[in-house]
Amino acid sequence: MHRVVTMGEIMLRLSTPGFKRFSQADTFDVVYGGGEANVAVSLANFGLSAYFVSKLPTNPIGDAAINSLRKYGVNTSYVARGGKRVGIYYLETGASMRASTVVYDRAGSAIAEATEADFDFDEIFKDASWFHFSGITPAISAASANLTERALIAAKKHNVTVSVDLNYRKKLWTEAEAKETMSKLMPYVDVCIGNEEDAEKVLGFKPEHTDVTSGELEVESYKSIFKQMKEKYNFKYVVSTLRESYSASDNGWSALIYDGTSFYHSKKYDLRIVDRVGGGDSFAAGLIYGLITKDDFREALDFAVAASALKHTIPGDFNLVGINEVENLVNGDASGRVQR
Amino acid sequence: MHRVVTMGEIMLRLSTPGFKRFSQADTFDVVYGGGEANVAVSLANFGLSAYFVSKLPTNPIGDAAINSLRKYGVNTSYVARGGKRVGIYYLETGASMRASTVVYDRAGSAIAEATEADFDFDEIFKDASWFHFSGITPAISAASANLTERALIAAKKHNVTVSVDLNYRKKLWTEAEAKETMSKLMPYVDVCIGNEEDAEKVLGFKPEHTDVTSGELEVESYKSIFKQMKEKYNFKYVVSTLRESYSASDNGWSALIYDGTSFYHSKKYDLRIVDRVGGGDSFAAGLIYGLITKDDFREALDFAVAASALKHTIPGDFNLVGINEVENLVNGDASGRVQR
Amino acid sequence: MHRVVTMGEIMLRLSTPGFKRFSQADTFDVVYGGGEANVAVSLANFGLSAYFVSKLPTNPIGDAAINSLRKYGVNTSYVARGGKRVGIYYLETGASMRASTVVYDRAGSAIAEATEADFDFDEIFKDASWFHFSGITPAISAASANLTERALIAAKKHNVTVSVDLNYRKKLWTEAEAKETMSKLMPYVDVCIGNEEDAEKVLGFKPEHTDVTSGELEVESYKSIFKQMKEKYNFKYVVSTLRESYSASDNGWSALIYDGTSFYHSKKYDLRIVDRVGGGDSFAAGLIYGLITKDDFREALDFAVAASALKHTIPGDFNLVGINEVENLVNGDASGRVQR
Amino acid sequence: MHRVVTMGEIMLRLSTPGFKRFSQADTFDVVYGGGEANVAVSLANFGLSAYFVSKLPTNPIGDAAINSLRKYGVNTSYVARGGKRVGIYYLETGASMRASTVVYDRAGSAIAEATEADFDFDEIFKDASWFHFSGITPAISAASANLTERALIAAKKHNVTVSVDLNYRKKLWTEAEAKETMSKLMPYVDVCIGNEEDAEKVLGFKPEHTDVTSGELEVESYKSIFKQMKEKYNFKYVVSTLRESYSASDNGWSALIYDGTSFYHSKKYDLRIVDRVGGGDSFAAGLIYGLITKDDFREALDFAVAASALKHTIPGDFNLVGINEVENLVNGDASGRVQR
Amino acid sequence: MHRVVTMGEIMLRLSTPGFKRFSQADTFDVVYGGGEANVAVSLANFGLSAYFVSKLPTNPIGDAAINSLRKYGVNTSYVARGGKRVGIYYLETGASMRASTVVYDRAGSAIAEATEADFDFDEIFKDASWFHFSGITPAISAASANLTERALIAAKKHNVTVSVDLNYRKKLWTEAEAKETMSKLMPYVDVCIGNEEDAEKVLGFKPEHTDVTSGELEVESYKSIFKQMKEKYNFKYVVSTLRESYSASDNGWSALIYDGTSFYHSKKYDLRIVDRVGGGDSFAAGLIYGLITKDDFREALDFAVAASALKHTIPGDFNLVGINEVENLVNGDASGRVQR
Amino acid sequence: MHRVVTMGEIMLRLSTPGFKRFSQADTFDVVYGGGEANVAVSLANFGLSAYFVSKLPTNPIGDAAINSLRKYGVNTSYVARGGKRVGIYYLETGASMRASTVVYDRAGSAIAEATEADFDFDEIFKDASWFHFSGITPAISAASANLTERALIAAKKHNVTVSVDLNYRKKLWTEAEAKETMSKLMPYVDVCIGNEEDAEKVLGFKPEHTDVTSGELEVESYKSIFKQMKEKYNFKYVVSTLRESYSASDNGWSALIYDGTSFYHSKKYDLRIVDRVGGGDSFAAGLIYGLITKDDFREALDFAVAASALKHTIPGDFNLVGINEVENLVNGDASGRVQR
Repeated sequence: MHRVVTMGEIMLRLSTPGFKRFSQADTFDVVYGGGEANVAVSLANFGLSAYFVSKLPTNPIGDAAINSLRKYGVNTSYVARGGKRVGIYYLETGASMRASTVVYDRAGSAIAEATEADFDFDEIFKDASWFHFSGITPAISAASANLTERALIAAKKHNVTVSVDLNYRKKLWTEAEAKETMSKLMPYVDVCIGNEEDAEKVLGFKPEHTDVTSGELEVESYKSIFKQMKEKYNFKYVVSTLRESYSASDNGWSALIYDGTSFYHSKKYDLRIVDRVGGGDSFAAGLIYGLITKDDFREALDFAVAASALKHTIPGDFNLVGINEVENLVNGDASGRVQR
Repeated sequence: MHRVVTMGEIMLRLSTPGFKRFSQADTFDVVYGGGEANVAVSLANFGLSAYFVSKLPTNPIGDAAINSLRKYGVNTSYVARGGKRVGIYYLETGASMRASTVVYDRAGSAIAEATEADFDFDEIFKDASWFHFSGITPAISAASANLTERALIAAKKHNVTVSVDLNYRKKLWTEAEAKETMSKLMPYVDVCIGNEEDAEKVLGFKPEHTDVTSGELEVESYKSIFKQMKEKYNFKYVVSTLRESYSASDNGWSALIYDGTSFYHSKKYDLRIVDRVGGGDSFAAGLIYGLITKDDFREALDFAVAASALKHTIPGDFNLVGINEVENLVNGDASGRVQR
Repeated sequence: MHRVVTMGEIMLRLSTPGFKRFSQADTFDVVYGGGEANVAVSLANFGLSAYFVSKLPTNPIGDAAINSLRKYGVNTSYVARGGKRVGIYYLETGASMRASTVVYDRAGSAIAEATEADFDFDEIFKDASWFHFSGITPAISAASANLTERALIAAKKHNVTVSVDLNYRKKLWTEAEAKETMSKLMPYVDVCIGNEEDAEKVLGFKPEHTDVTSGELEVESYKSIFKQMKEKYNFKYVVSTLRESYSASDNGWSALIYDGTSFYHSKKYDLRIVDRVGGGDSFAAGLIYGLITKDDFREALDFAVAASALKHTIPGDFNLVGINEVENLVNGDASGRVQR
Repeated sequence: MHRVVTMGEIMLRLSTPGFKRFSQADTFDVVYGGGEANVAVSLANFGLSAYFVSKLPTNPIGDAAINSLRKYGVNTSYVARGGKRVGIYYLETGASMRASTVVYDRAGSAIAEATEADFDFDEIFKDASWFHFSGITPAISAASANLTERALIAAKKHNVTVSVDLNYRKKLWTEAEAKETMSKLMPYVDVCIGNEEDAEKVLGFKPEHTDVTSGELEVESYKSIFKQMKEKYNFKYVVSTLRESYSASDNGWSALIYDGTSFYHSKKYDLRIVDRVGGGDSFAAGLIYGLITKDDFREALDFAVAASALKHTIPGDFNLVGINEVENLVNGDASGRVQR
Repeated sequence: MHRVVTMGEIMLRLSTPGFKRFSQADTFDVVYGGGEANVAVSLANFGLSAYFVSKLPTNPIGDAAINSLRKYGVNTSYVARGGKRVGIYYLETGASMRASTVVYDRAGSAIAEATEADFDFDEIFKDASWFHFSGITPAISAASANLTERALIAAKKHNVTVSVDLNYRKKLWTEAEAKETMSKLMPYVDVCIGNEEDAEKVLGFKPEHTDVTSGELEVESYKSIFKQMKEKYNFKYVVSTLRESYSASDNGWSALIYDGTSFYHSKKYDLRIVDRVGGGDSFAAGLIYGLITKDDFREALDFAVAASALKHTIPGDFNLVGINEVENLVNGDASGRVQR
Repeated sequence: MHRVVTMGEIMLRLSTPGFKRFSQADTFDVVYGGGEANVAVSLANFGLSAYFVSKLPTNPIGDAAINSLRKYGVNTSYVARGGKRVGIYYLETGASMRASTVVYDRAGSAIAEATEADFDFDEIFKDASWFHFSGITPAISAASANLTERALIAAKKHNVTVSVDLNYRKKLWTEAEAKETMSKLMPYVDVCIGNEEDAEKVLGFKPEHTDVTSGELEVESYKSIFKQMKEKYNFKYVVSTLRESYSASDNGWSALIYDGTSFYHSKKYDLRIVDRVGGGDSFAAGLIYGLITKDDFREALDFAVAASALKHTIPGDFNLVGINEVENLVNGDASGRVQR
């Protein structure tokens, strides 16, 4: 069984029930989630051996975060314990033209203050085949940026494939900070996932002049950027989801991949959204699973897009779907007919 | 007041709240339902005298199932008590391209093991004007298949009109089993409800070659099948709903009826789905009510389609709408404007 | 800070959770609301000094209604205490072609039996700049109609701008009663909000013959009515929302304003509805805020339409949005993208 | 099967969840209940044929009240439909030294305005063996007082046994009003249930001087009153529960009965209270069942006390226990051991 | 109306529903609370003019905290806005021998980083008659300790009476830190509330040798400490609650006061606990209300003990009782009988 | 880390919220539990390496059962997948004199039909130090009884210590059946847990004549039985909990152990019960942990009693307490004081 390692922060997510605003809520729905943790859970649900590396305080909230991962089969034996608090994000789910609202309260979390001493990266990576991280982890603190680099060095030492989801978060750092830190980490990366905004704000790439008709403009812009990214960092694959936000309730969803030779633009799904948080993470997980288990990167992309389309119908950060469900959708059954 | 009898299984339905997956739920929503029970409740809500015939164990879960029927005015005096368990079905409501999931746990239920000795069919049918059953009841066990035939014989003895909803359930029996059992029951039937899949898998009918343009293809296929069904079993009416599953959230909904002479295809509704379970049952109830109380079978079909369209907006198996609400919709008010 | 006064009834709203019908609910969601109370809350959320004038009984339900207003910063010091009961409305939220159902149980409420002796209108209006009421308040009782007139006389004595939302409620009075009472109150009004139905049933205006193409027919009808209204009552502004009810789940939403010289038809929003109750009130609040704080009545209308579009995504009667959220939508961001 | 008729008001009960105060609740728990309705439900749960006579408006809240009765097998065919509203009572469940709070909002309910013309008492009582009412019904309006007398006359014409629960409610009428009305109704009564306060405030009886030790004082007072009641009205049985309110959470519970010859004071139970509303009604139902089915009035009282002790552990107004559960408790199993 | 000012932190309280442990909860109950905020709410419920001084971030969670105070009539116009986060405490309510668990996550809250520049203390205290703070506020940060002293200086300048609740929190500071800071603040204090543990750990007082029998030992210890406290700091009153923790579910509750001349030990209540958090704060509020409005400090103490006994039956931090409810309990009605 | 293996059935538990009866519930609380699964979870929470051996169907309900175990760190790699259904038990939590009601629906579950072929017992026991089962497992079917014997043989082959909790369930088998099956399994057992009823009905032991005063009678009866058990089966320890059921809400709780030489009767706790299901299992887990980690069997018993006392305050079957919490209670802190 392939062992995949992800590293980052898992937060307590506090969301209002239904479409209530914060001031209306006298209960919060409680789940735990965070970019890399979400990827690990999704991979475990696909049957891979998924390890999540992080740090959590030795209190009942830290315990509950670990329980939420173990429940879905993620191996948490490399989660260090200590530090002061579990990071929090508050979520108010939007509808129609009202966007979802996220309020971060994650400063000073245990993983933000973790150091290399908390982890034995040689042990962690010695049997691993893949390492995934996102641009959020190096953004949460200088210590985390350093920790990420240590992990990447160890991963490469053990010939582990590395993927990144650039995931620019303007509430965590500036473009300048992002560029300085992330450009140092890119040489370790094999598979780079990031949309146009990420590419520009994290790595500084902008689409070159393109003279296509507007209908295809967006995809052509992406192609221009992907070529530049490939050229500069020699990524094996450059990938992005393409989200069309019609409203907070309805989105279009597809993805584009480039292997340095050819581009492949997946089928587009029209999503009726239940919970879009973690959508990108579920895509990354689907892609990792696809690239590990399938011969054709186009099939990997199809799997990733279908998996993440399904995620949008599931409450919480985690993508709780199995391989069969994803394959059924890839094979064309999007009718939602009840099976009985 | 017309007395209508239905016979079948009422199950405990355990569904996850919101769009949660089974593994996420620490509560289940609890209702009771099942094809013929759903028909009985809907008919009681339309003001008919509805009797439900079944068997339930003498324990509090059996009591609760009976309570759920009595609440809406269904007469439960012919429900036998005894047997081992109340059948269960687990439901996870889908959204967008994720279909609803049904897990059956109904083997060994009281009604599956019931025999003719549990019921006095002469008493049950002596003042009745209509008997309705579905293809689920004979599918649940050999005993149930036999029981159904006994009921049909008694119903016919008392000149009761009989309707069936073919309702093929591949998780309960094979096509061969269905055909063997159901073909013996069809001679007792006056009104046969069933879609293309049911007609083929339960009775073996397939559409003959039709040379229409594709837009009308489906309806033409149905017409071909309906004619064959009429010819073979001399049904008074052959009827089917036509569901277009755009996704688990949105469906098109209409119906077709054939009286041996002419076809009538109802108006089509575009449904935003709250709960589609019991949609077909609510159609059967609307049709029975319409055929009993209206002069024109076209009006009966319009009533049935509108009634069942409304069901899709109501949580649970039961269709909790009154005649006025259905008539308003038949008369064209689908605007959803608040009345105040 | 501008002081705005509204006067009317605040009721206990009892609504079924999710899309349950009344008979299914073993809990009711509890909020408090009513036309003018909703306007006051929305204005307080925009930062104005909002006063709500009403009467509530000296019991814990009356206290809870006051708490619900204070929570959002509405000044309740002019709410008289006494009388017998808090009015109630029951609400069942519709979906798709099933309309929301409202059952009123408001007769005999404290405000319906309140008299001038309960309020010191000179005190109330002496520092006020705006007074808003709706056609509901004079409709609830003869005493309330008289009270409304007393309030209007006092408001005008203190040079307060007056707006009305005609809001015809056929369950509260007849057209004849409405016309007799409301036509006496119109001379005090500066800004008149009301749709075509209100204009006809409350004030007797009908569109004159118009020879436009059907696509623009509705707006042309409104223009015809607005001109008549302006002419007869010399309103400063005549305004209406234009709701297109595709279904209980989806509406089109825009508005039209006339200043006696020119018409302005706002942008139209397509709404996925969470809760449409209070939509009109949130529009009135947005308009009042816009007319008080903006130079151009077109901008005021744009603000009002965006504010009330957002209301449709929020459960309960109150519009819980701030100025920034409305301005963002006015400025074109309806994509519902998460900010993080 | 014995047919028992009860007549009175069924209200919508709105209670805060847990121990929340009204201002804290954003949901209310919804049940329906009222003295005589509660008695009918309990009798139906004991297997008797229970009829509830009342009037309810033709709206969905009225429907829901009827559904709540039918659910437990109460026959509602004599419930008249019409009138303006369903009466309401708000309930806040107390704990420890904080008493439960009841806020009535029942004026103007359909039954309060019902008249003899709404019911066919000859039809209602012709096959009945018992009629039960409480002192609440005549208290809700002059029309109800008159209606009660009409019912009693008809009951006696058909030789129906009559029981009353005096149930003085100071929020509904004065002692003088109660005495004037109730003393006219007592001649029709066979079984009179009422505690010391009821006896004094409704019928004017006070304990005569007694020279017993204080430990038995209360019971001796009751004996003195019972003798006077028996003497004046020739009741067959005079009965009272004896509640010792240690706190809102813990009560002592027993009862006393007098048959004109001897007194019997039941066993006392120490109750840990879940919901004490309806406790007295469940006692009346237990007593009626006991007097109908048992030879010894002492056994009837034991059954009634055990039945009503169990009621205090069940949320809502209704006593949802069966005969076996009551008999087990009568036979001494109060250990609360799980059966499995 | 007396104006009372309190200053401190208001936190988001996240508690598990029922008796769930943190790992079991997929919802948290949400209220806002904190020592001095709780006192302000209780005083507002008693009809005083209560002001709460604090600092909260300009985000929706900060808004919600303010809304929670305004709802009960607390004036929040002196709450500064800014800073990074709302402090949090997690609560798991215990039962029987399992104690409630509190996990603090309050470091870095807005009020912890607030400075004198955030407040205009002259404005705040110029019309005030009483200022209350607790030992928690100076404990949360050095800035807060300094801020408290600034407030006390301003309060005294305006002849405001000052009360303190010593409230030692070992998770916030050491005994040495507490003593150093708090001993500097005591000279400003008129009314000092604190139990034996507080007196020792915050101010260093221990009971002198006492030769009483053990039954009265605790009260005698308190008397010894109170005398020392009075002597050293010349407090007008020294007060303490006396909690006897039989278990997490049941407590004994009384209080002791000393005016420098005589002691008064109140009645003791046996509490069945719903929520004991905020019990001490409700006592402080009761005492402040009593000392302001009653002539006799013994009556003030009786009021405070009864008010805080009732708090233990109410979920959340706030004491939501009115004067009448407290007076009823003071006057001896602890029977929990329903009033109707 | 000690590896402990338990084997048995894990069921879906469906319980009504609060104190609702089954007919009142429109939601069920959902947890998973069963004797040996509960032991495994508790041991995992104490930090041991706990393995649960069972069989569950390959459907989402089976998945959810596994997730519930993994969440708390139980190793589920030896859970076979297949079979037809997950067993169910319905639970209605009692209060006061109303006992909790359990309705089993567990026939035909996957584990009931499992055979030796589903498990590799050599693999399972090769690194294990302890094996625990209960009398429920052999009771559920003949296959299970045989499976249990196979497991015991394998355990003994690997020198694993064996404990049993006799747990007689009259709804699963007769005394005769129990005796026949269980007496064959006792020779493999080292530690036998069972109360007087279990000892008699499962193994046929009755207390011999004892001439002690009644106060100590129960303990003396136990001693008599323990001696006989020790003698016949040469158990290393014979142990029993002693539950005194005052009511469904309050119990006394202690335990007795015998090592063949001396008896030790633990401290008795008075429990205010939140959820008593799983109380005995939590005791078994505490005892196993204690016997593995402590030198003195008396200390083991004290730990077990305290651990299981705490269980009674936690909803669900699982005992979610850590070692520290148990040790604190053993050391005497039962006051329930909040730590902060």
